[in-house]
Amino acid sequence: MPTQIESHLSDNGVLRLTLNNPQRRNALSEAMIGELHAAIANAAESSEVNVIVLNANGPAFSAGHDLKEITAAREESDKGRAFFATLMNKCAAMMTAIVHCPKPVIAEIDGIATAAGCQLVASCDLAYASNTSRFATPGVNIGLFCSTPMVALSRNVSSKHAMEMLLIGDMISASDAERIGLINRTTDSESLTAMTQAVADKIAEKSSLTLSIGKEAFYCQQDMELAQAYAYASDVMVDNMLTKDGEEGISAFVEKRPPVWRNE
Amino acid sequence: MPTQIESHLSDNGVLRLTLNNPQRRNALSEAMIGELHAAIANAAESSEVNVIVLNANGPAFSAGHDLKEITAAREESDKGRAFFATLMNKCAAMMTAIVHCPKPVIAEIDGIATAAGCQLVASCDLAYASNTSRFATPGVNIGLFCSTPMVALSRNVSSKHAMEMLLIGDMISASDAERIGLINRTTDSESLTAMTQAVADKIAEKSSLTLSIGKEAFYCQQDMELAQAYAYASDVMVDNMLTKDGEEGISAFVEKRPPVWRNE
Amino acid sequence: MPTQIESHLSDNGVLRLTLNNPQRRNALSEAMIGELHAAIANAAESSEVNVIVLNANGPAFSAGHDLKEITAAREESDKGRAFFATLMNKCAAMMTAIVHCPKPVIAEIDGIATAAGCQLVASCDLAYASNTSRFATPGVNIGLFCSTPMVALSRNVSSKHAMEMLLIGDMISASDAERIGLINRTTDSESLTAMTQAVADKIAEKSSLTLSIGKEAFYCQQDMELAQAYAYASDVMVDNMLTKDGEEGISAFVEKRPPVWRNE
Repeated sequence: MPTQIESHLSDNGVLRLTLNNPQRRNALSEAMIGELHAAIANAAESSEVNVIVLNANGPAFSAGHDLKEITAAREESDKGRAFFATLMNKCAAMMTAIVHCPKPVIAEIDGIATAAGCQLVASCDLAYASNTSRFATPGVNIGLFCSTPMVALSRNVSSKHAMEMLLIGDMISASDAERIGLINRTTDSESLTAMTQAVADKIAEKSSLTLSIGKEAFYCQQDMELAQAYAYASDVMVDNMLTKDGEEGISAFVEKRPPVWRNE
Repeated sequence: MPTQIESHLSDNGVLRLTLNNPQRRNALSEAMIGELHAAIANAAESSEVNVIVLNANGPAFSAGHDLKEITAAREESDKGRAFFATLMNKCAAMMTAIVHCPKPVIAEIDGIATAAGCQLVASCDLAYASNTSRFATPGVNIGLFCSTPMVALSRNVSSKHAMEMLLIGDMISASDAERIGLINRTTDSESLTAMTQAVADKIAEKSSLTLSIGKEAFYCQQDMELAQAYAYASDVMVDNMLTKDGEEGISAFVEKRPPVWRNE
Repeated sequence: MPTQIESHLSDNGVLRLTLNNPQRRNALSEAMIGELHAAIANAAESSEVNVIVLNANGPAFSAGHDLKEITAAREESDKGRAFFATLMNKCAAMMTAIVHCPKPVIAEIDGIATAAGCQLVASCDLAYASNTSRFATPGVNIGLFCSTPMVALSRNVSSKHAMEMLLIGDMISASDAERIGLINRTTDSESLTAMTQAVADKIAEKSSLTLSIGKEAFYCQQDMELAQAYAYASDVMVDNMLTKDGEEGISAFVEKRPPVWRNE
């Protein structure tokens, strides 16, 4: 099977992962999920990658799960239960791998992002979209509520906004997605790559170690009560101060020179 | 006692519940709370109801608890403690019944919604308001902080916005309520019913079973950590895929025909 | 050491605490943290204080920790670990004291608020800023991720917005800070004091007892599940109803006269 994900690493450590199955609207089939998870896992380990941009070829960023694959599984003796369970687990594991990836992951959307495709946007740390992009959790229209996408969606936007998307199932505009906090910013389609690249380039200049410390801490402390979160974050901060990059960064700032990161 | 709630069920399963005590500004007296709770409970059980719209007659959607009822209770030997506890428990149970109701509940506000009336708006899944509507949690002005309304309010809007309403106690405009996420959208008073009805009609077309699966899952997974939420939501998704409506919905979509729901 | 905090109490119970070390950009040094914590603790105990406004002299509201102090500590035998741990614990304790202070605390920002200075804004109950103010969590630029500021930041703004500030580290405008919910409102620099004072004066008119009941309940119920939050808040409400101020407030409202608070 040919790969469904293009990969390009720039000299400054920006890895572009491009979903490349436009004929299938970049459906998150079991194979696509597996490839994307592997690509994220490889990037997590690579010392050459500082930040990941996730985009897509074709008019769809991703249309979510592959309905033909799901329908085919119904022919099995268990009516597909085992396959569905495997598919959901693999999909959740891939989404969670993005959250746990020590490198920041930026979604760049120029097209439609629906169902698990919308979940993918919500699971990234940052998201930028063309102003012609559209977003939806339309599962309710086909009898299949977007229950797993809503895990990521409801951790990005407020209840009323999430429920409107989930219960109605209609497309929302990029500007509405920006308004409710599902994405960070929009621009015209021609400027999108430049906008995302500028953000990625800025992040790529940071200490990769510092980014990994901070990203992990961000998601860890979210579910804690305030006192516990401060106790945890204070420990993280002390350890960060004692890293070589923490010392170098402050020294460089005080001495008004660019820092030289060693990622240690 | 005459009923304080009008009820109208349309052919497509949209139940309109209308608070109808405009002389008392639709106060959430013990009686009104009881009637509304019963109406929600009945709708939850009814196979004819797909979605509920909650609106009100008169210039107030609801002005919250009935202060005369509260003042009267102070004459009792315990200074009202037993009555207050019963009232708070019944009110919280009614608000929670809206959250747990398997049918989506849409608030339609054309007037003022204050204190427990504002809590009622926050407790619904969706909310649409006329642009002349106003919202407040003004208890602090009468020595009685809106502590129960804030449970619902703070689960809809961010901390600074909730605190501004709670500490100052002033009315906020419908556009501010939309901006902070307390309501979904506003329109002029003349168009409000049409806007809400259009949303309700869209939701009424979905599988009632699918809606109930998704709404329950939404509120269940909110308080879970990410890994637990995904494990739970994945199970929900697999079960949903194996429902007849899940199969029918996908089949209809693939075959480009309208689905026929069986709610099983 | 001269005091770094100016204090002014108006007749109506509005206490202005002013960070007054503009030469050091109101850095949150160990000494400044200690003075601010003491001032908050005193105000919490004072029967003359109804509400606190926290502002600053000079072009910086606060630039966060004192990097020279941090750098100096690296000369110690443990490379500063003990000092860093003490500093982080004291800072978190001061921020938490603002949250737990029974009096509402309003940040008034006219300048830059960065790193722990931004955390200070996020930790206050309300925040108003001049439209030339700017906000950042720039630690990532000096190898030191703003992990403790993010505890407060992520409890005010949504994930994508928090992550954009934390990962990029750039200044954001006051209008963006308002848009994402980090602050309540902006105005021009000349009108800022009047805007904040108007809010403080309104809050100062309330029962201080009622404010303390409500503020404590707000932060307590935030981390609870819905049913637990309602059980807790209902108890708070019943107790509040039985206070003298709760009785007086409702009586005054019904009798259309101003209430006379006794704070009991």
